[in-house]
Amino acid sequence: MTYRLYYWPGIQGRGEFVRLAFEAAGADYVDVARLPVSRGGGVAALTKRMQADGPRPPLAPPFVAAGDEVVAQTANILAWLGPALRLAPADAAGRRWTHQLQLTVADFVDEIHNTHHPIASHLYYEDQKREARRHAAAFLEQRLPKYLGYFEDVLARNPAGASHLVGRRLSYADLSMFQLVAGLRYAFPRAMARAEPACARLVALHDAVARLPRVARYLASTRRVAFNQQCVFRHYPELDR
Amino acid sequence: MTYRLYYWPGIQGRGEFVRLAFEAAGADYVDVARLPVSRGGGVAALTKRMQADGPRPPLAPPFVAAGDEVVAQTANILAWLGPALRLAPADAAGRRWTHQLQLTVADFVDEIHNTHHPIASHLYYEDQKREARRHAAAFLEQRLPKYLGYFEDVLARNPAGASHLVGRRLSYADLSMFQLVAGLRYAFPRAMARAEPACARLVALHDAVARLPRVARYLASTRRVAFNQQCVFRHYPELDR
Repeated sequence: MTYRLYYWPGIQGRGEFVRLAFEAAGADYVDVARLPVSRGGGVAALTKRMQADGPRPPLAPPFVAAGDEVVAQTANILAWLGPALRLAPADAAGRRWTHQLQLTVADFVDEIHNTHHPIASHLYYEDQKREARRHAAAFLEQRLPKYLGYFEDVLARNPAGASHLVGRRLSYADLSMFQLVAGLRYAFPRAMARAEPACARLVALHDAVARLPRVARYLASTRRVAFNQQCVFRHYPELDR
Repeated sequence: MTYRLYYWPGIQGRGEFVRLAFEAAGADYVDVARLPVSRGGGVAALTKRMQADGPRPPLAPPFVAAGDEVVAQTANILAWLGPALRLAPADAAGRRWTHQLQLTVADFVDEIHNTHHPIASHLYYEDQKREARRHAAAFLEQRLPKYLGYFEDVLARNPAGASHLVGRRLSYADLSMFQLVAGLRYAFPRAMARAEPACARLVALHDAVARLPRVARYLASTRRVAFNQQCVFRHYPELDR
């Protein structure tokens, strides 16, 4: 079965957590909006699918279509695909725990986004720069260490060892942790240089995921969109104190 | 089996979505931190459980303990309990859809919270009042109608009719929708008076849920914490324009 991922073609954003799962699993998928328009791709294909009639509309990308089903919400997509992609534990309690971690990743991602858009998503950064400065300072002081410390603690407590967040095998939560560390390094290089000594297990997990052959090939390919200033992760030096 | 809910005793907050599910199902549950300290309750019981050693720590309340398992993240809790409480569809695709709606509720709740705390959760409202005014205005203009319109559309598109969000039976998503409408009416009475004519199905769902015998008894009981100014839903007249 071919999975069809619908997400904004020009950014990593929330869709990247799904792309990483497909890539790490070697899954058969199409990143629809990144196809050329001549092959049914582009943003138009995404918006057309979003506006389609149907009983279960997504509110926003990313969403994935497979067979008759269309599933939205990043963490929900990963909970659905995880077992089929062999990126989730076999037992139900383990799957709930993996999903719980992913939902905490989602909360963290929302807060990272709000550092540069504390007032409104539809306004430009330049129109909320003063508020962003205040928000980002509070984020770096309180929230960044809180979340990183939490995930570091989860690794430290894993009875199967600190190589993975859940059990002894790679899960989509590990892939998401790679993406978080990579994105935070892009957005806040100064703050991350300060924070990383206290989360060595997390950094080791990031490095191990980056070295997985399929992930390494993906990161070196043109399928990986580069970090940029339209994404959740943005580098504004004035916010990185 | 007795479920043990751990949540802040003085607010509705995110825990209320779980309380409503327990109450509507007539489930056997204990709202641990609302018990008197002499019976093992109070905030101390909550923080003690949060700080317990264990391989799968929650980052924040609410979380629910049942048997050996402790599950956190509101939407994850509801996805877990939904089938046992008969508040989720029987089929897997229906459950994913219900969960997707709940995750969209969670996003909405985050945005509602940010109207009064756009800079940082750990600062007082009074210390971010100017930013809150700007944030809330953008929220009421753009986000409130977007989310309400989305859920109204979901009701309109339900092939089984607009009495429920999913299929023809009550689900935890319907209970959450009741809570959203009730909370928004408390926080933003002026804005909701303007918005409600465009989402009549949603208002009808709110009213129908409030009339369910178990829910009505719960709402009239002392188990229901009153809305107040420490919750996600806060009424600041200066933000309700």
